[in-house]
Amino acid sequence: MAQLHLLSPAGFRASGVHAGIKSKCTPDIGLLFCEPRAAAAAAFTTNKVVAAPVIVGRRHVRGGHLRGVVVNSGNANACTGRQGEKDAIRMCQLAARIAGCSPREILPSSTGIIGHPLPMRKVERGIVEAGQYLGNSLEHALLFADAIMTTDLKRKTAAVEFKIGRRPVVLAGVCKGSGMIGPRLAPHATMLAYLTTDAQISPALLRRLLKDAVDASFNAVTVDDQASTNDTACILASGASGARITAGRSARLFAHALTEVCQFLARQIAADGEGATKLLTITVNGARSQNDARTIARSIANSPLVKCAMNGNDPNWGRILCAAGMTPAAFDPLKASLRLAGTTVFARGRPAAFDAARLAKALAAPEVLIQLNCNLGPASATCWGCDLSRQYVSINADYHT
Amino acid sequence: MAQLHLLSPAGFRASGVHAGIKSKCTPDIGLLFCEPRAAAAAAFTTNKVVAAPVIVGRRHVRGGHLRGVVVNSGNANACTGRQGEKDAIRMCQLAARIAGCSPREILPSSTGIIGHPLPMRKVERGIVEAGQYLGNSLEHALLFADAIMTTDLKRKTAAVEFKIGRRPVVLAGVCKGSGMIGPRLAPHATMLAYLTTDAQISPALLRRLLKDAVDASFNAVTVDDQASTNDTACILASGASGARITAGRSARLFAHALTEVCQFLARQIAADGEGATKLLTITVNGARSQNDARTIARSIANSPLVKCAMNGNDPNWGRILCAAGMTPAAFDPLKASLRLAGTTVFARGRPAAFDAARLAKALAAPEVLIQLNCNLGPASATCWGCDLSRQYVSINADYHT
Repeated sequence: MAQLHLLSPAGFRASGVHAGIKSKCTPDIGLLFCEPRAAAAAAFTTNKVVAAPVIVGRRHVRGGHLRGVVVNSGNANACTGRQGEKDAIRMCQLAARIAGCSPREILPSSTGIIGHPLPMRKVERGIVEAGQYLGNSLEHALLFADAIMTTDLKRKTAAVEFKIGRRPVVLAGVCKGSGMIGPRLAPHATMLAYLTTDAQISPALLRRLLKDAVDASFNAVTVDDQASTNDTACILASGASGARITAGRSARLFAHALTEVCQFLARQIAADGEGATKLLTITVNGARSQNDARTIARSIANSPLVKCAMNGNDPNWGRILCAAGMTPAAFDPLKASLRLAGTTVFARGRPAAFDAARLAKALAAPEVLIQLNCNLGPASATCWGCDLSRQYVSINADYHT
Repeated sequence: MAQLHLLSPAGFRASGVHAGIKSKCTPDIGLLFCEPRAAAAAAFTTNKVVAAPVIVGRRHVRGGHLRGVVVNSGNANACTGRQGEKDAIRMCQLAARIAGCSPREILPSSTGIIGHPLPMRKVERGIVEAGQYLGNSLEHALLFADAIMTTDLKRKTAAVEFKIGRRPVVLAGVCKGSGMIGPRLAPHATMLAYLTTDAQISPALLRRLLKDAVDASFNAVTVDDQASTNDTACILASGASGARITAGRSARLFAHALTEVCQFLARQIAADGEGATKLLTITVNGARSQNDARTIARSIANSPLVKCAMNGNDPNWGRILCAAGMTPAAFDPLKASLRLAGTTVFARGRPAAFDAARLAKALAAPEVLIQLNCNLGPASATCWGCDLSRQYVSINADYHT
């Protein structure tokens, strides 16, 4: 079976070209189109400082249908005032001309430096050029995925196939994000994620299922706990498979696939966090409420002291408990138990004996599991983060505006 | 006039000795005694994971009077279970024997690694030895200040003299703190701070004035936003000056002096943050409420991206606005203005033209001012932080438990 990708669902075409916005010679303008028009839902940043493309994109997705997405990397078009909004609308106009639709059927996205006007001559030339290279091959999907990357070192993609009745449905996605990652998307990322499917689904149901999937995935990922001005997750459903998603079993199957794809993408963001040498998966069990579980997991994932200890392969579990106890969530150290890379280090209020040298070796793995049991209630949550390295500081201190 | 210090207020004696708890050959056991007994107030961490000395200290200060403080550095006596509490009480017993008082009149403190039992033979020998070297000279004050230090590179002290009527009053303090700094003390650090005064004041009033001063100082300081298991601020008032602090003018004068001393100490903590090369002073004006102003100031001070940019002397102001907008506080980028090291970089929704090379030079100063005006309301707040350097990662990744 051929490899599934973003353009495997029937109805989609995409392209990515280098327009010179990024200094690196990689694609920085991407187009993703659906034919016929797609049921669409999107989740945007909850930051009060929102980029121009987010302001415009919120308006355009409101009607529940889109013909496509136009995106640039290398410049966030954020804090750019009225001109920024005009530029975002201009991007939609150019993309719409290529797709043969209304500009309001195009969702614009930008990612990169904040506070600089978009270099519109480059952007305009880029969009026109991208329109000449549209296609639905794996290569086209990869060029689009490349066009949204900034400090990412790795391309991030995911795809699944499942059946609704006898009909096969494909659900696929790409995303980017490495720094300024602590999305709080409502009905919630500069994380950008684009998902495609050939399922047939109403915009209202799509919106609800996207919200749930985003909460369990992109909103559970953190590199530096910074909710960006541009965070966006958008799904387009072409309906071309003929498989209808309504309430009940079909919705559950679709929701499961959507969450799986989103989580697979979210994990890739954490693993490719700026300067990261390893992925941290934090699970909190036995919390009093889901919100408590998420709050504690996120506090651990965001602790610079925990992140540095993980960078140094140091089983300094006291820092983990400290981070767990400092949130408003219910937590009792006398009841809590903690496992680090599979080794119990703290059990119901007491330090456990363990082989520190052996555990330090286990911590050198590319993925480290931190499992905290609060033993207070029924709720659980998972959060993905990464270690904090000297390289993170280099990337963000030496990089000059 | 002789230099004022922690033991300038009449009634106080202190000492600091090296007992071998820290690997560095500097003092790690400190005693601070007051004769006669002092009116006392203290503020402790709000972390739910609290160290044994905090549990014991809360009980001991409840009565409003103390004869002194016993403190060790190099081991936090946190997550150490029942034995930890017994050890903290044992520290009080030994100190009380020296002071000639009840163990319940001694406040114990510890700072250092979490999750290891206190090396009690060393601690016991150290306390007995410290009892033989008590005095009230500048050297004694400095040895006590050294005894509470961990990763601190600089000793942190402050003292003021003011008059109540015709009577001169001295208020002085020492503190420590460099990492795991994001105190949330509630009537609220491992920040440790000890304050002395010869004013005469009731425990109730002292408690109230300490709370206000701590909110405007230690609770407004962040290095890594981690509320420690051991954070403690404690003030002892000997009354020996005969100057009575009651309501009205005398309370205002005392409150002003107390806030000034606490802020002077808090700034020293931020400036000596782990790996820090500069102090960041963030002022937020024109916020809708005091709480909004504090929330926004703290979010900016805690942004790893802002901290890295400041480390690199990069006027990347978009990161500052991003951090300001991501909190629940009211914020409108179209109304906001931002000054960085005295240069306007953003004014009421628009990027301002500035000389980037010149500003980069200004950012290389030992203290950088970030001034955000929300232009939304009457409230303001100040918060102190520091940059994030490769050195911070080295300190916290290479350090092994």
